[in-house]
Amino acid sequence: VSALSPDEFARSLRERAVERYHDRHPFHVRMHQGLLSRAELRTWVVNRFYYQTRIPIKDALILSKAEDPAFRRRWIRRLVDHDGSSEAPGGLELWLRLGEAVGVPAEELVALEHVLPAARTACDAYVELVRSASLLEAVAASLTETLAPRLLESRTAAWLEHYSWVPEEALAYFRVRVPLAERDGKEALEYVVARARTAELQQRCLAALLDKTRLLWRLLDAVAGAPAELA
Amino acid sequence: VSALSPDEFARSLRERAVERYHDRHPFHVRMHQGLLSRAELRTWVVNRFYYQTRIPIKDALILSKAEDPAFRRRWIRRLVDHDGSSEAPGGLELWLRLGEAVGVPAEELVALEHVLPAARTACDAYVELVRSASLLEAVAASLTETLAPRLLESRTAAWLEHYSWVPEEALAYFRVRVPLAERDGKEALEYVVARARTAELQQRCLAALLDKTRLLWRLLDAVAGAPAELA
Repeated sequence: VSALSPDEFARSLRERAVERYHDRHPFHVRMHQGLLSRAELRTWVVNRFYYQTRIPIKDALILSKAEDPAFRRRWIRRLVDHDGSSEAPGGLELWLRLGEAVGVPAEELVALEHVLPAARTACDAYVELVRSASLLEAVAASLTETLAPRLLESRTAAWLEHYSWVPEEALAYFRVRVPLAERDGKEALEYVVARARTAELQQRCLAALLDKTRLLWRLLDAVAGAPAELA
Repeated sequence: VSALSPDEFARSLRERAVERYHDRHPFHVRMHQGLLSRAELRTWVVNRFYYQTRIPIKDALILSKAEDPAFRRRWIRRLVDHDGSSEAPGGLELWLRLGEAVGVPAEELVALEHVLPAARTACDAYVELVRSASLLEAVAASLTETLAPRLLESRTAAWLEHYSWVPEEALAYFRVRVPLAERDGKEALEYVVARARTAELQQRCLAALLDKTRLLWRLLDAVAGAPAELA
């Protein structure tokens, strides 16, 4: 099998990401249609927060696999974006504000007590995928980010329209992430396309990306399947 | 066995670090006495550089073990200190300048070609120690940093006195590290003393620190034992 050209490979990665991207999950579709109850929205926020807490951990693992200081200098911004700095609150902090707005006190969110076991398993599996993957595969798994900007924009619009009981400023995370996800997705795509120059490496990258989309999907399966008293 | 008090434990950590700290290694003693040949100094710079390249990798592993964003916000500075940022060159860049000054072109240093196998093994073993350790033990292993400021200061003085063929500005790494090592060592010591509250945890921390000093020692064994044509 011969390798795909850079353009063909970039297209395949995109198709692969789209294929099972979690925007098509029935729970996510219902969210954007305005059909979720307050309790369901809260369950999503609580469980997705656990995913958010795994992002800096998997990004630190990616840093630990990188031999090139220039790569690390770029990738490290992702940790700062989520953890925050003396200059700006990070994504985790913004997510706490979202939690407060849907009725979950920050201490409760941080304690991760209400995270569903199946959601935890799905998110932990992403960290393990990254831990055991090569640097290239781990970066490929992050390429769902290329689809995030559009999804975040439509999510903000949907929440403003359908869940107007959530104050607009509580949606800061969704808005702040748009340019960051754009930058991160673009950088990661360039990296993967430039480095995966054999058919085998390309297949491995496509497989890692598929695995990642499956894990995001499983997270929503967990949320959708939550017992009624939690949802 | 009951746990040591915080003060006793801090003293034990210090004694443990001092016990086999690499400043007592015969090769290091000869360096500070001005007895190394240019070739020996070059061999040290080349092999110690490999250790320097492992630092951001082990610090990224430490980040990946930390669940607390506040801990990560502090620890991430270590990566920036070594990798550099748009504002300042990092320690690795400063080490390349040291290499140039002792006659090793940057490309050659970065290629890691002249790193001795035994030096590589010792440095890789440190990364593996951190990878397999708990967060607490990994931080404890970093406590050699508490001894670094004094060593760096005496190293600068020794080089200026005995190896005056090395221009002073090439010693920037040694100088720049003094306040950073002070800050890092202090922070790490506070963390370890606060968290290791049982005799068992304290013993594990002391063991991790001893392992670390042994690895630094082995690095110098490798350098001291280099074949004549490399030294």
